[in-house]
Amino acid sequence: MTTRQNAPTDRAELAPALQVSQWLGANPPASLAELRGRVVVLHAFQMLCPACVSHGIPQAIKIHQAFAREDLVVLGLHTVFEHHAVMGPAALQVFMHEYRVPFPVGIDMAVPGQAIPQTMQTYGFRGTPSLVVIDRRGAVALSHFGMLDDLQLGAFLGQLVAQPAEST
Amino acid sequence: MTTRQNAPTDRAELAPALQVSQWLGANPPASLAELRGRVVVLHAFQMLCPACVSHGIPQAIKIHQAFAREDLVVLGLHTVFEHHAVMGPAALQVFMHEYRVPFPVGIDMAVPGQAIPQTMQTYGFRGTPSLVVIDRRGAVALSHFGMLDDLQLGAFLGQLVAQPAEST
Amino acid sequence: MTTRQNAPTDRAELAPALQVSQWLGANPPASLAELRGRVVVLHAFQMLCPACVSHGIPQAIKIHQAFAREDLVVLGLHTVFEHHAVMGPAALQVFMHEYRVPFPVGIDMAVPGQAIPQTMQTYGFRGTPSLVVIDRRGAVALSHFGMLDDLQLGAFLGQLVAQPAEST
Amino acid sequence: MTTRQNAPTDRAELAPALQVSQWLGANPPASLAELRGRVVVLHAFQMLCPACVSHGIPQAIKIHQAFAREDLVVLGLHTVFEHHAVMGPAALQVFMHEYRVPFPVGIDMAVPGQAIPQTMQTYGFRGTPSLVVIDRRGAVALSHFGMLDDLQLGAFLGQLVAQPAEST
Repeated sequence: MTTRQNAPTDRAELAPALQVSQWLGANPPASLAELRGRVVVLHAFQMLCPACVSHGIPQAIKIHQAFAREDLVVLGLHTVFEHHAVMGPAALQVFMHEYRVPFPVGIDMAVPGQAIPQTMQTYGFRGTPSLVVIDRRGAVALSHFGMLDDLQLGAFLGQLVAQPAEST
Repeated sequence: MTTRQNAPTDRAELAPALQVSQWLGANPPASLAELRGRVVVLHAFQMLCPACVSHGIPQAIKIHQAFAREDLVVLGLHTVFEHHAVMGPAALQVFMHEYRVPFPVGIDMAVPGQAIPQTMQTYGFRGTPSLVVIDRRGAVALSHFGMLDDLQLGAFLGQLVAQPAEST
Repeated sequence: MTTRQNAPTDRAELAPALQVSQWLGANPPASLAELRGRVVVLHAFQMLCPACVSHGIPQAIKIHQAFAREDLVVLGLHTVFEHHAVMGPAALQVFMHEYRVPFPVGIDMAVPGQAIPQTMQTYGFRGTPSLVVIDRRGAVALSHFGMLDDLQLGAFLGQLVAQPAEST
Repeated sequence: MTTRQNAPTDRAELAPALQVSQWLGANPPASLAELRGRVVVLHAFQMLCPACVSHGIPQAIKIHQAFAREDLVVLGLHTVFEHHAVMGPAALQVFMHEYRVPFPVGIDMAVPGQAIPQTMQTYGFRGTPSLVVIDRRGAVALSHFGMLDDLQLGAFLGQLVAQPAEST
């Protein structure tokens, strides 16, 4: 796994805020800060990206089902960087309905005159699918472009969930 | 397999004409009649239907690759009967590009005031994915809603391809 | 597909006889000659060969199910060329029971002092799994080492089944 | 998951000793006690059990690869309770070679006059595949008959690995 391991104490290393123009689905968070104390799995995808649809979304749904909500929260992030016209909010809504996506999905904020949306730029995603894991203290524990094995990812998340929120 | 076996000689039993408002992709046929003499596999799908995306489209691509074009032609038919606003021609074009669909896809003709498009009504499809196989003489040899096993379908198509175009 | 296409008329091109020391399972053929007029699919395997177990045997079972017995017959051939001591008839019998193998399996005849059994030598198999397809006239139409796609193989067999037994 | 959660403090609740007549493969443990302080995953299987071969063994290999050896150790247990004659040590050795099993496998001790071997009886396995997970303190944390999802199992193991060996 391509990981970015951050020492957890410095405030500057906190996961950057999500820049989201709109949330779809139930129970969207007010902000990442609101989720501090839980592990957050952020699945960045595009609804017409084949590897996202065949691998990333099913894996994100499995993660959502494998953990208690008070320990770990899955968020989708629709990072549209191509074919913007046909992957708008109405299309995404249908996609979420048809694929039974059970977690909230934020639409990454468009940047006027640029193809790549705001959060994708801030996090430096190389494409879709990308997966970011944020630990209980709010630091980025993993940032990965491409596919990850279910068992390896489950093991990584299980260990992270077992870590205390406070390092005191 | 749910099949409709037609005796091939009566003109009335020929596969109904496709009512298509627009073709996307290379080498669209002028009509089914133009393809008389070859086996035609018609794959009816919607671009946001999960079983179409995970099963139907990959199978149709395998069929396209398994046969010589002069023996068998695969045609897609985009039979949108729900969520019409987000599955228009521009979205379908992106879908075909992202999923590398190598055969032409016709957009089933909308019927004013009705959800179900024209060809879908004519053929009586119960949903998507649906597969229609037309033999060399132009008669419907198979009409199936849902998924079919690759080996069984390959065997069926192989036998059909081996039949002569003329029953004399 | 690695194929060997034989002109069907010359007697010398008939598939060589199977050298089998024992048949397991119901309805073993007396000889290949007895099956003349039908397509024969010969699946050569070893019960402890991983690709045979995960791919070859399930595919052979699908072929067995996809065709009428009067058109096509599947035969297994246990071509043990390594670890002979632990892949004897009693072990094979258990394997066939556990994996629900529905077609007869012949044990390739051992050659004294040699690892490679008789039929494997005669047919020149390079390893397991290997697949041989014999047409209705008794000629080898396909001989392949390794894995084949279900749809492509189904198409090939369907075309072969549709050919007449007699070329007159 | 069918789990048996033991409070970890009582010595009587420690995982029972393995009764093994012979170990195959590198680095067999002297006993479970020797592994105290690490998580132990015990995969009970039979080499001719289809679900063991297609699901259990590949999953056990993934677990072996996903964790550091000082945190978690995978052990195989060959619990032969049927067809004993063809699943002896020599056959198992070939199976481990052909399937590239990278962890040690113990042969469950036969009980004279009984089909079910000793450790299988002690642990009360209902069949194969069965999976037992022992925590760092030596207590059984999970005992499951059948298949488990990779992501769920990875999450469970990750959490267990993150627990301290001592409960002080």
